[in-house]
Amino acid sequence: MVERGWSALVVADPANLYYLTGYNAWSFYVPQCAVVPARGQPHLFLRAMDAHGARHTAVLPEDRIHAYPEELVHRPDVHPYDHIAALARELNLFVDNPDEVVAMELDAHHLPVRGFLAVQRALLHARIVDSEELVNWVRVVKSPAEQDEMRAAGQVAERAMTAALAGLRSGRRECDVVADIQAAQTVSVGGVGGDYPALVPLLPTGDSADTPHLTWTDRVLRRGEATTIELAGVRNRYHAPLARTVCLGPPSAKLLDCAAATAEGMEAALGSMKPGAAGADVHAAFTRVIAAHGLTKESRIGYSIGVGFPPDWGERTVSLRAGEETVLEPGMAFHVILGMWMDGWAYELSESVLVTEHLPEPLTSMPRQLIVNE
Amino acid sequence: MVERGWSALVVADPANLYYLTGYNAWSFYVPQCAVVPARGQPHLFLRAMDAHGARHTAVLPEDRIHAYPEELVHRPDVHPYDHIAALARELNLFVDNPDEVVAMELDAHHLPVRGFLAVQRALLHARIVDSEELVNWVRVVKSPAEQDEMRAAGQVAERAMTAALAGLRSGRRECDVVADIQAAQTVSVGGVGGDYPALVPLLPTGDSADTPHLTWTDRVLRRGEATTIELAGVRNRYHAPLARTVCLGPPSAKLLDCAAATAEGMEAALGSMKPGAAGADVHAAFTRVIAAHGLTKESRIGYSIGVGFPPDWGERTVSLRAGEETVLEPGMAFHVILGMWMDGWAYELSESVLVTEHLPEPLTSMPRQLIVNE
Repeated sequence: MVERGWSALVVADPANLYYLTGYNAWSFYVPQCAVVPARGQPHLFLRAMDAHGARHTAVLPEDRIHAYPEELVHRPDVHPYDHIAALARELNLFVDNPDEVVAMELDAHHLPVRGFLAVQRALLHARIVDSEELVNWVRVVKSPAEQDEMRAAGQVAERAMTAALAGLRSGRRECDVVADIQAAQTVSVGGVGGDYPALVPLLPTGDSADTPHLTWTDRVLRRGEATTIELAGVRNRYHAPLARTVCLGPPSAKLLDCAAATAEGMEAALGSMKPGAAGADVHAAFTRVIAAHGLTKESRIGYSIGVGFPPDWGERTVSLRAGEETVLEPGMAFHVILGMWMDGWAYELSESVLVTEHLPEPLTSMPRQLIVNE
Repeated sequence: MVERGWSALVVADPANLYYLTGYNAWSFYVPQCAVVPARGQPHLFLRAMDAHGARHTAVLPEDRIHAYPEELVHRPDVHPYDHIAALARELNLFVDNPDEVVAMELDAHHLPVRGFLAVQRALLHARIVDSEELVNWVRVVKSPAEQDEMRAAGQVAERAMTAALAGLRSGRRECDVVADIQAAQTVSVGGVGGDYPALVPLLPTGDSADTPHLTWTDRVLRRGEATTIELAGVRNRYHAPLARTVCLGPPSAKLLDCAAATAEGMEAALGSMKPGAAGADVHAAFTRVIAAHGLTKESRIGYSIGVGFPPDWGERTVSLRAGEETVLEPGMAFHVILGMWMDGWAYELSESVLVTEHLPEPLTSMPRQLIVNE
């Protein structure tokens, strides 16, 4: 912040709030934020009923937790950010003169436009700039403690995927398989349970398998269909996502070919993920392999992961795709997701990995093949 | 829209997208919207990989579904809304002259500020105004078909709450109880399964029970603690939320007193929910009862419900609180939630109801008392 000349940073992304303060509750559906001064501790601004939750979860002293009145929630005439901005001015976190620069997370999921406009109204002279995901970028390299959380998340992901692979059988309903998955994502094993994922299990199947983000129905799974499953294990908000594909009954030749090419592409991608490689290099390693098999893929093949809150477990920083110049460093974490969406069918294979000094460390160890069930 | 003089409305709230077009996928973590012209069908703008999902779920013809390129996702230099705004201009959905008014959902959860600024840059002459939840307000009165979805959601809520009340026992871990709840929220009964809720089960317990939005840990539940549980049953995105309180071992006198006062307050609130009553009247009916018991409650006692997507199942329209002038009509639906958050403890009781010609119809039928388990 000092380098960029910012006097204050308004943080609304719940993952960034958690990272900076420890605050952890499902309260991001109403306006809430931290205002971080260039020097000193952040201040948290929350709805009154959630300020208690901050006292239980955030590592901030009482005088840094500010409650806005309940009557401001969902009102057409006033907005919580009017109150927050006025209080931030009183606290001298916002100083409204032309030398001051206040940064805001303008692409964060839970900063309403009405909140941004309220801050604009409160700061007539100071300049408001886009924070360009500064905190997200700080989060990219994980500490040893964070890496341990991600390994624990990997254990949960393995249990959940094991339930999915066992559960996907013809004659069962999609919702019943998801019930198994969700229980496995949450239940404790050896006293250690799972946290909620930033996305629910996704399992496009049958005719709808050519698109990745459909959720379940209560349709009965049929022999001859393939289902792609994407889910995550979560521990203390750290995510380890994982995707596999299950075919009910004998797979087609094109699905088998795609699975083989994708597995080879995964080997190549992971093999290239050494410190010093750029994101684009990883993408190129994958693309060379699948091109040799006559396949193409339009979308990125991975993204940085770590702390996540709904609706996304990606960090919105590094992507593994053409043009990505960010260089890999030990402690970075990625979901390498090879989603091959074809016309009317799909194959998906993913791994969540930590970048190390040498080859990446996978957070799960599940076979990397097409699963064939009855 | 015609009454308000709007030529176009940009809809980003996933619940409104679903209501207007049927589009239903977990893709709201990247920019997406409908642009609704004052006359004619809406146009949907989605990430390329999600446009396929719109073909499976939305009731729009192919030429109303527009895919933006994958390379625009999570880029620092370009934004999907730049592309969307340019395309909306080409399609004459946006006309940039001073007579035109384009409304946007400026308090919707999934409209990033950066998206709003992109539309502003594309419309130098037209006026951009806040839609003030127009579509949400259209959703307030439910059709008979919608009411049936909500009744089906109520069945799921009952199953999930039954699992919660059976599961909350001393010696069990919070996460293990939640695994039971989640499975019950999703699994099929008689071929009908549950959809994912817009919020995960919330169950503040022990020392943390004085705040409503904490999620679970893997802590072991202890005798002497009370836990408040808030969850929802969901069917085709329609929500029936429900809250109860469980005490492990004999409850304290103050908890019993609060439970009795709250149950009486619920009777009074529901008894007042007849067509013609204002939201404020319902709040007053409740407040009179609890005041007679020496209790107060700062926050609203309910809100309009229906279609919901994460992070919220409230419609962000009618609240049951002082000052709410909206008059109840048959077909409206409310979550009447009496959350009594005290210093270090809490009692919660809720009902989801449909407003009818006479008394409201509860979507669930669970006893309205403090549950005492061992």
